[in-house]
Amino acid sequence: SHSINLAVIPGDGIGQEVVAQGLKILAAVLPQDVKLETEEYDFGAKRYHATGETLTDADLASLKKHDAILLGAIGDPSVPSGVLERGFLLKLRFAFDHHVNLRPSKLLPGVATPLAGQPEIDFVVVREGTEGPYTGNGGTIRKGTPHEVATEVSVNTAFGVERVVRDAFARAQARPRKKLTLVHKNNVLTFAGHLWTDTFNKVAREYPEVTTDYLHVDAATIFLVTDPARFDVIVTDNLFGDIITDLAAAVSGGIGVAASGNINPSGEFPSMFEPVHGSAPDIAGQGKADPTATVLSVALLLRHLGYEAEAARVEEAVAADLTERGDSVRTTDEIGDALAARVAS
Amino acid sequence: SHSINLAVIPGDGIGQEVVAQGLKILAAVLPQDVKLETEEYDFGAKRYHATGETLTDADLASLKKHDAILLGAIGDPSVPSGVLERGFLLKLRFAFDHHVNLRPSKLLPGVATPLAGQPEIDFVVVREGTEGPYTGNGGTIRKGTPHEVATEVSVNTAFGVERVVRDAFARAQARPRKKLTLVHKNNVLTFAGHLWTDTFNKVAREYPEVTTDYLHVDAATIFLVTDPARFDVIVTDNLFGDIITDLAAAVSGGIGVAASGNINPSGEFPSMFEPVHGSAPDIAGQGKADPTATVLSVALLLRHLGYEAEAARVEEAVAADLTERGDSVRTTDEIGDALAARVAS
Ligand SMILES: CC(C)[C@H](C(=O)O)[C@@H](O)C(=O)O
Ligand SMILES: CC(C)[C@H](C(=O)O)[C@@H](O)C(=O)O
Repeated sequence: SHSINLAVIPGDGIGQEVVAQGLKILAAVLPQDVKLETEEYDFGAKRYHATGETLTDADLASLKKHDAILLGAIGDPSVPSGVLERGFLLKLRFAFDHHVNLRPSKLLPGVATPLAGQPEIDFVVVREGTEGPYTGNGGTIRKGTPHEVATEVSVNTAFGVERVVRDAFARAQARPRKKLTLVHKNNVLTFAGHLWTDTFNKVAREYPEVTTDYLHVDAATIFLVTDPARFDVIVTDNLFGDIITDLAAAVSGGIGVAASGNINPSGEFPSMFEPVHGSAPDIAGQGKADPTATVLSVALLLRHLGYEAEAARVEEAVAADLTERGDSVRTTDEIGDALAARVAS
Repeated sequence: SHSINLAVIPGDGIGQEVVAQGLKILAAVLPQDVKLETEEYDFGAKRYHATGETLTDADLASLKKHDAILLGAIGDPSVPSGVLERGFLLKLRFAFDHHVNLRPSKLLPGVATPLAGQPEIDFVVVREGTEGPYTGNGGTIRKGTPHEVATEVSVNTAFGVERVVRDAFARAQARPRKKLTLVHKNNVLTFAGHLWTDTFNKVAREYPEVTTDYLHVDAATIFLVTDPARFDVIVTDNLFGDIITDLAAAVSGGIGVAASGNINPSGEFPSMFEPVHGSAPDIAGQGKADPTATVLSVALLLRHLGYEAEAARVEEAVAADLTERGDSVRTTDEIGDALAARVAS
């Protein structure tokens, strides 16, 4: 394709600032003959306060027309917890069937990590994005009384588990180490655990070159800090994936550099790319936000749209910038400019 | 009380070895006039293979007569995942209403941690033990077909949440820093999240001296590696507690020194004390297991039974041993002997 029709959702807090840098890098890296069209959407706290809306059917219809979506961050302390998460972020992931939530972790030389001894970290988590405890199933009875009961139902289907497990095997097969780890808690969550484990073992037979293993989620958190080099590709459920990818981000350079893609592999719906971090209202508008996570999300977006060389150029620019930035304090804009200069050269 | 009637469950793998050291230290630290009676139970993989039993009603009736239970570890690769966990460990926690799962984390000077810069770590996690996704609610339809659906239901009651939150506030109030953090995922698991958050805020009003805050579980994993000193007491749900306490153990000296108590505060049922680690079949029978976690669990047991001075003596012995052990390689028995000598002196 020689044009990209991109939906841009800056969102709340630092979202605006980091997305501006992401777009700067996108413009700088794309070949001259690729036409980049962007349409900005005003989702987030401001619109919610003004209209009570988070994401309408008309919004979804409009978003659907784009090739991909770039999101900054959604969330503000002025909005009750859950309203924008369930009403926007999760609604969009579910509506657009973003069942592959892709979160790579790579610790670059010289980048700060809380771990001693600068371990080798280079893995990717394939997190299921449309099932598990994220479905919103469950409810409350006798609310606010001493007899309240609140439930949350994790829903797992053969259809949903198999497609994400297949995606993860294909990714593992394509990587040099060809190793895939299933993370679950199948000794306690035995119903879902059986489905995940049986599906994993079944698909494994089609990938004889891929080495597989299994870790309980609690044990996985231990290895993420004691031996992160053991991981190549991880496939896991929506909630476990949420938890371990924040930990993975923390050990591999911090939440400021963690990218993610919410992918609909069939292309029926546009995929969405966003930094793992939130809207960080405490530092918003001060030029302090690190746009690196957004820029790396742009690389995932480029790769998804078939611009592999451009994606690699963005990742190389970030790697060079990260290893050379040292203790220098730069504004959001300065980091963006530095990266734009690198990808253009 | 001038006698302790203890149920001892060595269990599988290294369980036997570490429990032997725990009992050694218990005998060494108790005043002469306290009569220690122990009864050993053969639960675990061997009995399961021989009889198909994991924990019968008669077993529960027999265990109930004891003042407390010391457990080594249960679990063996020869038994399908989930059988001993659900059939023994969780069955016992539920049957004896062990709703306070207490897991302290303290990094001692000189003790190895995967974190750079030897941060200060001294907090305790109060993990709910009888609700959440651990209840075994849920099920499977169309098993083994492309249309399988497997569910797991997290059950949360006002009764269950309030009692554990109250326990945590009381513990926070009794500590010098008086700080309590609620860990949940209330922006996604909104039904359970409301119940936990509302209950937490309600009880907080009775503890004006306790500083409170809230973290999503994913963010909590980040702080556990980037700023563990921020934590004093954490209260959380059964599954989140399982995950973050393994991570907490990993950063504060390793799973070899992490103790836990499964506590029934009312005393209606005996409480159970066990190392957080598993049965480690790969090193079983070789004298390689570190009994420290079991010995620290014995300290929790002593404190629970009212032997505060003795509990403190065991903890001091462990602290001295840990800070002085350096790189020395000692057998399970040698570590036990060294600790027994310290508590006796
Ligand atoms: C904001 C929240 C709904 C979201 C999630 O839990 O998936 C976030 O933590 C993430 O990881 O993208
Ligand atoms: C073995 C398993 C059932 C158990 C749990 O999940 O609670 C263990 O991980 C623990 O933390 O005690």
